[in-house]
Amino acid sequence: MSDFVIDYPDIQFARSRIRRQGVGPTPVHRWYAFEERSGKRGLQVYVKCENLTAIGAFKIRGALNAVMSLTESEARRGVATHSSGNHGTAVAYAARARGIPATVVVPENASPQKMNLIRHYGAELVTCESTQKGREETLARLVEERGRVPVHPYDHPAVMAGQGTVVDEFLDSVPDLDWLFVPIGGGGLISGTAVTVRSRRPRMRLIGVEPEGANDTKRSLEAGTRTPHPAPDTVADGLRAFVGRLTFPIIQKWVDQVLTVTDQEIRQAVRWGFEELRMVVEPSAATVLAALSQTALPERARIGVILTGGNVDPGLWASLQRDASGPGR
Amino acid sequence: MSDFVIDYPDIQFARSRIRRQGVGPTPVHRWYAFEERSGKRGLQVYVKCENLTAIGAFKIRGALNAVMSLTESEARRGVATHSSGNHGTAVAYAARARGIPATVVVPENASPQKMNLIRHYGAELVTCESTQKGREETLARLVEERGRVPVHPYDHPAVMAGQGTVVDEFLDSVPDLDWLFVPIGGGGLISGTAVTVRSRRPRMRLIGVEPEGANDTKRSLEAGTRTPHPAPDTVADGLRAFVGRLTFPIIQKWVDQVLTVTDQEIRQAVRWGFEELRMVVEPSAATVLAALSQTALPERARIGVILTGGNVDPGLWASLQRDASGPGR
Repeated sequence: MSDFVIDYPDIQFARSRIRRQGVGPTPVHRWYAFEERSGKRGLQVYVKCENLTAIGAFKIRGALNAVMSLTESEARRGVATHSSGNHGTAVAYAARARGIPATVVVPENASPQKMNLIRHYGAELVTCESTQKGREETLARLVEERGRVPVHPYDHPAVMAGQGTVVDEFLDSVPDLDWLFVPIGGGGLISGTAVTVRSRRPRMRLIGVEPEGANDTKRSLEAGTRTPHPAPDTVADGLRAFVGRLTFPIIQKWVDQVLTVTDQEIRQAVRWGFEELRMVVEPSAATVLAALSQTALPERARIGVILTGGNVDPGLWASLQRDASGPGR
Repeated sequence: MSDFVIDYPDIQFARSRIRRQGVGPTPVHRWYAFEERSGKRGLQVYVKCENLTAIGAFKIRGALNAVMSLTESEARRGVATHSSGNHGTAVAYAARARGIPATVVVPENASPQKMNLIRHYGAELVTCESTQKGREETLARLVEERGRVPVHPYDHPAVMAGQGTVVDEFLDSVPDLDWLFVPIGGGGLISGTAVTVRSRRPRMRLIGVEPEGANDTKRSLEAGTRTPHPAPDTVADGLRAFVGRLTFPIIQKWVDQVLTVTDQEIRQAVRWGFEELRMVVEPSAATVLAALSQTALPERARIGVILTGGNVDPGLWASLQRDASGPGR
């Protein structure tokens, strides 16, 4: 038991709830090429493949848990969120699964592909100015005027508990993980992860990873209080969010270390995903591969990484491949 | 029991042999986007992810089974093969696992990347003229002068039995598969698959898939005898081989149907792999996705596809992405 908004039983409950909706467990893969390169015979690297969920990202878990835990009267009001990325798709997917309406606020410059995907799952799209203020005001209006229930992308107990199911499955597959690398955007995934880990495997080393251009969590930990990055800018588009009010205290208490990686390192890691894991790894997910590869690792250990998603705009992908093809390995 | 060179017990034995070497089971993924598009609520499409083996292709299975089944005195002579693709890597990997020398004959125009991978696993490379004749003569010389044991890429009982382990695992994960799509190159994979399927699930519909530009198996079935394609030419570089002497009779007896797909369809399917499966799917593997998408499927069925590999030269990948980005879905 803890002072936080979620506890391990919330995660166990979330897990059975989303399992009934056909989500999980995702496959666990090995990063054989990295193990080879390391030259350390006792090193094993396990990759939890959240790019292989129905929407290609772990976000399906939190959204589904949040939407499925609404009361009947809340559900009738429908849900709303703002997101131009995986959380928007996840909320649309979850609302369809429950058979209720969903509205997703997207910035007017969102990619047509992502908007198509959200529409595909039957959600209504409302465009807004592409500023944080524009998004929040539009969402607030939907909540006020149409009674929609907001589903925050990370600062929401049911969302955090849903994201915590990733590592709960991971520990069933590889019970003796020693280290775990997890990306940090708003902190939904790593806070749910931390709650699970400290209950099931308290001494595991838990490492958060941020892009250098959006290192608000690192800044916040150093300052001892939530401190935004003045102008987040990174190719890892899923990690630009500001660490949450609910997620930050959990990170403060239970995450052992936060590492940062540069955009150039992220691009190289996307290419490792392609060539060595034979998977599509979006930049936000590649951060953990980048961080792992620059960490001094023990001779003998089981290392886990959560590969959070595989949705990449084809144009961005092409540019990533071009940029990474300079002097490589 | 049958008149063929392998029986189901050979596959069971192969499976435990390669398992001891850390190979298998590979993950099974769902092609959710295809299921959605089909509009058939009773349709489920399961994807067996052989792109996620240590070498990124199913070929590791046959090569490992062949190399591990050598006698001690054979093993001391080392192994040799000719291949510019996944089989070459697989033999190198298997020889290293057994601790014996391997020589891989590659055409002088093979990609540096593939040669690096073969070298990485410690095999010796011998280049030759890039003709079938050049390859075979060079291999024959290695066998004669240096006593190497040849490991044929498909016309070899232990290789066929090793490839049959893919579907044996698949049927453990999804016991009630109704249809299965499998690519055909030389026929090693589909012959091992057929032997397993006819023993474990005799009524399953087994469908082979060839590129139109290398449709020698279809020609051979129509002629009733092995008949080469006059000039194989396809983007599916792993499927250009001529169907084997040992594999063909099994295909004749036990494969229900052979479909062909065009290079344009293969390119589109590589893109589905990227966008919808979030995986790297090499053109030879994409054939089954292409074939599935143009087959009239029942309203209610469990369909399996064996996704054979994920090794794509970055240059080819870039061109595939460009070519496919015309008028899409």
